[in-house]
Amino acid sequence: MKTLPVTPHALDALTEALRRLPGVGPKTAQRMAMHLLQHDPSGAEILGQSLLHAVAAIRHCRECNTFTEDELCQVCADQGRDRSQLCVVESPSDLLAVEQSHAWRGLYFVLMGRISPLDGIGPREIHLDRLVARVTSDEVKEVVIATNFTPEGEATAHAIESLLKSKGLYEQKRVSRLARGVPVGGELEYIDLGTIAQAVRERRKL
Amino acid sequence: MKTLPVTPHALDALTEALRRLPGVGPKTAQRMAMHLLQHDPSGAEILGQSLLHAVAAIRHCRECNTFTEDELCQVCADQGRDRSQLCVVESPSDLLAVEQSHAWRGLYFVLMGRISPLDGIGPREIHLDRLVARVTSDEVKEVVIATNFTPEGEATAHAIESLLKSKGLYEQKRVSRLARGVPVGGELEYIDLGTIAQAVRERRKL
Repeated sequence: MKTLPVTPHALDALTEALRRLPGVGPKTAQRMAMHLLQHDPSGAEILGQSLLHAVAAIRHCRECNTFTEDELCQVCADQGRDRSQLCVVESPSDLLAVEQSHAWRGLYFVLMGRISPLDGIGPREIHLDRLVARVTSDEVKEVVIATNFTPEGEATAHAIESLLKSKGLYEQKRVSRLARGVPVGGELEYIDLGTIAQAVRERRKL
Repeated sequence: MKTLPVTPHALDALTEALRRLPGVGPKTAQRMAMHLLQHDPSGAEILGQSLLHAVAAIRHCRECNTFTEDELCQVCADQGRDRSQLCVVESPSDLLAVEQSHAWRGLYFVLMGRISPLDGIGPREIHLDRLVARVTSDEVKEVVIATNFTPEGEATAHAIESLLKSKGLYEQKRVSRLARGVPVGGELEYIDLGTIAQAVRERRKL
């Protein structure tokens, strides 16, 4: 957006910086900047400090690679978790989603990315070697690949599978992928055909 | 949104702080926080610093009340502006909109609010006394009330008009309101009826 000499520099800089947020364009950024300065300067200060604090304080868990403020994240540090099971997810938000389902009592490994040849992200960029090292540990008996069911997530799952096979780990550990099918509450009439086809192919015996 | 003990505190605090932005709910805030930490930590730092800098550096212009980093804003400091004309707007964004139209060469007065009885904002809360003091100055010959054409903006315009009348300023200065009518490029078929009725009542002689 054209800026006029009438806007103070600090306001222009703030508007520009707000555009770094995902989904925020020039108009929204300007509205946000004006709102904070006009109606919520203390909110702006809190947000500013939270951002600087988060960037400084948050690092990656030594074991599972998710965000944490300590050496180990709270899941890895929790002695009540089943340490023989490892769930591989793309991002900390995915970890959170699985946690919220209360269906997993094992540990995690967070890739912090997915394979995306179009963006030049291959197996090396998402540090699959770290995952292999983790899976190699005697402690781990089962690996659940829980990458997204998007083309990139599927490519990532496939790359992990090949890698575990090439290292001879596929035979030693129980490796699985999250089930695909009709979502809970789903009505067949409104479900996309690819999902229905998948659910038919992978039908479960009762 | 329910937070789980698995998210580090600094990340929760950031997500919570991002919700102070207008139009940002819990899901969007979480997505923004994750995005910044995962893909753009330098953006997060820049945004954090811009916020703190803006809050510290930006104040109100002594003359017109808009945002500025100096004693006087750049419009008020500009000797090329017509100092006899004063345009009254609700907010710095409105000032920017009028500036961008390149149709105004006078000065401004920014109310930094509007009358809104439902929110407990009356004439006192938006400092109309400062506006009256500004209009009283001999320098000012003409006042254009450019508050929005919303119920609150109209109530504000009405309050300003009454106040100027009660102070005897209405007769001394040329007081006007922005024209209402069909927008440029507007097709009658798609314009709301209130605007058409207004445009008919306020039709101009050719």
